[in-house]
Amino acid sequence: MPQPTLSPPPAPGALPWLSQARLPPTRAIEIVDERGERRAIQIPDERPLTVFVDRRELVTLMTLGSRPELLVLGYLLNQGLVAAPAQVESVTVDWEVAAAAVKLRTGIADFEARTARRVVTTGCGQGTVFGEISAGLDALVFASSPPGRVSQRALQRMLAAMRELDSVYRMAGSVHGTALWPAAVDTAGPLFFVEDVGRHNAVDTVAGWMAMARVPGGDKLLYTTGRLTSEMVMKAARIGVPMLVSRNGVTAMGLDLARRLGMALLGRAANHRFLCYCGAERLDWDATVQASA
Amino acid sequence: MPQPTLSPPPAPGALPWLSQARLPPTRAIEIVDERGERRAIQIPDERPLTVFVDRRELVTLMTLGSRPELLVLGYLLNQGLVAAPAQVESVTVDWEVAAAAVKLRTGIADFEARTARRVVTTGCGQGTVFGEISAGLDALVFASSPPGRVSQRALQRMLAAMRELDSVYRMAGSVHGTALWPAAVDTAGPLFFVEDVGRHNAVDTVAGWMAMARVPGGDKLLYTTGRLTSEMVMKAARIGVPMLVSRNGVTAMGLDLARRLGMALLGRAANHRFLCYCGAERLDWDATVQASA
Repeated sequence: MPQPTLSPPPAPGALPWLSQARLPPTRAIEIVDERGERRAIQIPDERPLTVFVDRRELVTLMTLGSRPELLVLGYLLNQGLVAAPAQVESVTVDWEVAAAAVKLRTGIADFEARTARRVVTTGCGQGTVFGEISAGLDALVFASSPPGRVSQRALQRMLAAMRELDSVYRMAGSVHGTALWPAAVDTAGPLFFVEDVGRHNAVDTVAGWMAMARVPGGDKLLYTTGRLTSEMVMKAARIGVPMLVSRNGVTAMGLDLARRLGMALLGRAANHRFLCYCGAERLDWDATVQASA
Repeated sequence: MPQPTLSPPPAPGALPWLSQARLPPTRAIEIVDERGERRAIQIPDERPLTVFVDRRELVTLMTLGSRPELLVLGYLLNQGLVAAPAQVESVTVDWEVAAAAVKLRTGIADFEARTARRVVTTGCGQGTVFGEISAGLDALVFASSPPGRVSQRALQRMLAAMRELDSVYRMAGSVHGTALWPAAVDTAGPLFFVEDVGRHNAVDTVAGWMAMARVPGGDKLLYTTGRLTSEMVMKAARIGVPMLVSRNGVTAMGLDLARRLGMALLGRAANHRFLCYCGAERLDWDATVQASA
């Protein structure tokens, strides 16, 4: 019987090893339209992915599976179940068994206690966060100066670029996209872009990418197609991004939390238009842009 | 010290007592638009509502609070935590403490076991269902004949009526609506209509209403503004409604489940248009309607 290969001890601060188990995000199906005509369309093809942490079942996520390892890593970070990527030795996704095996370097000492309290969240109305997510909220408050500013012209460039982006949404609809941009919004496009069946998964995947790429959030902005709910605001704050822009609107708790954390929230953002719900001081208004809008 | 009033023993099959703790669904805020102009808009005003079942904390739901007691009752039913409304003695919502106290007549014998397994679902990507939700799936399969049919003309009437409905969505956006209609779609409007921050909460509230009104689902259709995910399909099946119509699209798991259960799924439904993803045999096609479309 073959012995499992022993890995060398990890370097301090080393990044986790991730498998690369990507799946195609859509599936072709046949529909009948209102004229009774049959034709083929693409629909989002999500799958359940059960996350095991050191062999203990944590949760089942539904995902398109574009970047499942980053999703799992970001989920653990955003839930506060691990404090830094270096705590994770590996994330191995196996679609044959629809499982993500997470191996920790240190273990979660109080795993049961940390995952005991369920809070079912907005959005779909019933998202899960564990009790830890709102722990240490005060540590997340953003400094009002100096960084984390965006100009109206940069916003306009970003919205134009997002509109042109080749996406699952364009092909199949019914998914949420999230993109991380430098606040200066250069022409190179977003730093990272991902789509998933849920906006929470998309932003968790961004968190996973930022952790692996060691990219800080302070001078970035996060674009999402989903609503700006309290969990979205919380997740943006966790990854250190003080500015959230959405094609969609805001909810009261999202707004309250963003005000408390000193973030900028912009919604209904499309073409030249947007509403700034809070944090207007992070925007550099531009009279010429406004005149041409 | 006053003694608590003793209630008389419940009649068999009695309905639960519900408080009437409605809240206004929106709040006015001031925004700054892209021209730098300040104005007031309405946004959805959701609150956390923590559900206690016989004094044990179950879950925290985020809700607009339009019909919180029906939401809680429907949630318990749709999660399979109670089998019938008669098992519930009362649902008392108190917004001062953001809590819903559920008193059972019988208790949940295996409460811990039933709520131990968390499945984080699609939609927002991370909705919670407990392990029990997919239990007894085969018992939910719909007979292919005779009931549960809808004509194309009735569908058109329903879509026209939904478009005209006075709603939180029209005023504030960023919410999901769900309406229960008789499949014949008369002019009296939907039997029940509710909006909430999440489509799952909205359909759970419909389930609570049906339980209280003792309304069966077999000859009804359910309209939702949200995506047709596997949980939406599951919840419709649980309340016995074989036809789901959405302004939005479908996901692969929603479609697979609906096929397995013998349901009709229609999406991208607006004005005269729709896509029938499955269950086309439940539709009565109408050549005159198609010609005028």
